[in-house]
Amino acid sequence: MSDLPRFVEILEEGPREGFQAEPPGIPVAAKLELIEALAETGLAEINCASFVSRKVMPQMADAEEIAATVHRKEGVRYRGMWLSKNGFLRAANSGLDLMATLSASASDTFLFKNNNRTPEQYLAEQEQMLDLFEAHGLKNGPVYIFTAFGCNYEGAIDPARVVERTAPLLDLLAARGHTPSHVTLCDTIGSATPEAVRRAMGAVRERWPDQPIALHLHDTRGLGLACALAGLEMGASRFDASVGGLGGCPFAGNAAAAGNIATEELVLLCESMGLATGIDLARLVEVVALAERIVGRPLPSRLAKAGLFQPNPARA
Amino acid sequence: MSDLPRFVEILEEGPREGFQAEPPGIPVAAKLELIEALAETGLAEINCASFVSRKVMPQMADAEEIAATVHRKEGVRYRGMWLSKNGFLRAANSGLDLMATLSASASDTFLFKNNNRTPEQYLAEQEQMLDLFEAHGLKNGPVYIFTAFGCNYEGAIDPARVVERTAPLLDLLAARGHTPSHVTLCDTIGSATPEAVRRAMGAVRERWPDQPIALHLHDTRGLGLACALAGLEMGASRFDASVGGLGGCPFAGNAAAAGNIATEELVLLCESMGLATGIDLARLVEVVALAERIVGRPLPSRLAKAGLFQPNPARA
Repeated sequence: MSDLPRFVEILEEGPREGFQAEPPGIPVAAKLELIEALAETGLAEINCASFVSRKVMPQMADAEEIAATVHRKEGVRYRGMWLSKNGFLRAANSGLDLMATLSASASDTFLFKNNNRTPEQYLAEQEQMLDLFEAHGLKNGPVYIFTAFGCNYEGAIDPARVVERTAPLLDLLAARGHTPSHVTLCDTIGSATPEAVRRAMGAVRERWPDQPIALHLHDTRGLGLACALAGLEMGASRFDASVGGLGGCPFAGNAAAAGNIATEELVLLCESMGLATGIDLARLVEVVALAERIVGRPLPSRLAKAGLFQPNPARA
Repeated sequence: MSDLPRFVEILEEGPREGFQAEPPGIPVAAKLELIEALAETGLAEINCASFVSRKVMPQMADAEEIAATVHRKEGVRYRGMWLSKNGFLRAANSGLDLMATLSASASDTFLFKNNNRTPEQYLAEQEQMLDLFEAHGLKNGPVYIFTAFGCNYEGAIDPARVVERTAPLLDLLAARGHTPSHVTLCDTIGSATPEAVRRAMGAVRERWPDQPIALHLHDTRGLGLACALAGLEMGASRFDASVGGLGGCPFAGNAAAAGNIATEELVLLCESMGLATGIDLARLVEVVALAERIVGRPLPSRLAKAGLFQPNPARA
């Protein structure tokens, strides 16, 4: 029997992780145009904004305005992101469709360098976030595991450590009656390889056979879609991806970090394997041109550059 | 048991297919510098030039000069390419390390549009080429199958047709006492997907279980490395690839055709799977910068842009 999922969920990260990596100054109207065009492609979930410090991340200072003014298409969930209790409270007030998202880092060094927390301290904060989610009626969200494949300080991450750092979070959620929608393994620093994806996913599946797994991949070193293929074959049923490959991760301590895998290339891969995504690929490829106009440069997507394969029998 | 090859052979196509897609005017000295730098990376086979019409392809008018002046490193084979008897005779006189290469097209329409030949006419010419190869002491070369996955006129290619168009060539070679080194399935127009690679390779393996298979992939729509992964898992033991992703296929009737998969990204994929290539990846990544200086623009390689993943424990 195949491990392939029947339907692949995609969380579009372009307007959030993508624009977050751009210089400040993209007009709200342009962001809204992109989000609304993405919603017309069949994408069911779009991450619209980060509710983070306006000083540290002026690119996202318009989060409330985006949330308040975006035209909502029925059936589409408009997501938001945050890094702190205060950020969550802003997001909760914004009216976006939030998920009860918790996180852990597979690399303790990365966690300490980026969050100044030990795993125990960070877990305690996650428990406080869970209190807050429950108070706002949110439950059963995803669990994000950062640096699940590699860390820019520690190097390759042992799959056993992914399990070790995921377990306390899943135990906490189980004790509180939550069923996590997904464990999302994140290639935070862009070092994932297909084999690393298989090993990490295999370890998580071995420990929690019924837990759906998602992947947050970057195409930093050209293996992003190969990692997605390996992930699909291991049963990954959800991906974070970014239209055109827009974006990067400014927190990863690596100036060369590339954006997420391109949503349209992921959809092409899924379609070629007979896996449904609900997305109109031709329409999505057209939206890449809009994203490129907004950022004023070509995006990494090769599919968008070449266009869909359209044989022309009339010329034969 | 795994189908994975133990060692992956790579034919470097940058100086040939890559430069062929560039505007004329690259100095011979620059081409020699690239070829010689590639030879220092451990690459064992480098395609150096096409012996084709100087009028139609002025980019390759220096083929003889390249062949005559390239500094040869021991153990490296310096390949050449041709499209006609006359071209082969030029190549044979050049002193390059030639292979007795024959070809067929899986798409009859593509063959007719590009070569003005029926499959029968083209096969008859291949037999004449074989006479010529034998007269020059060449045997047991590869068989290239163009449009093995798709055709810009006919669309997707049925794997049964790949077998059907490969069979007469393999029969001819067997009758003449040749053992083809590889059947090389070519993604001539850049439409291959991992599933298409699996299906075509599966059909060829089913018919000729002991025949080594190679892949000539392009990264036109972002799935090139995912196709390579699928190919490796099906036992592909040889790839054509191009440093930095240099190049394209000007004959494919598609202005958006991208270059071959980037050699360094393929080597990274192989290394991550524990497959030997004999290539020094760090050194190869450095050569991309030289190739970029020669063509005067960034090449598509993402690995070259990001650099190798080098964790820095000292910063931890």
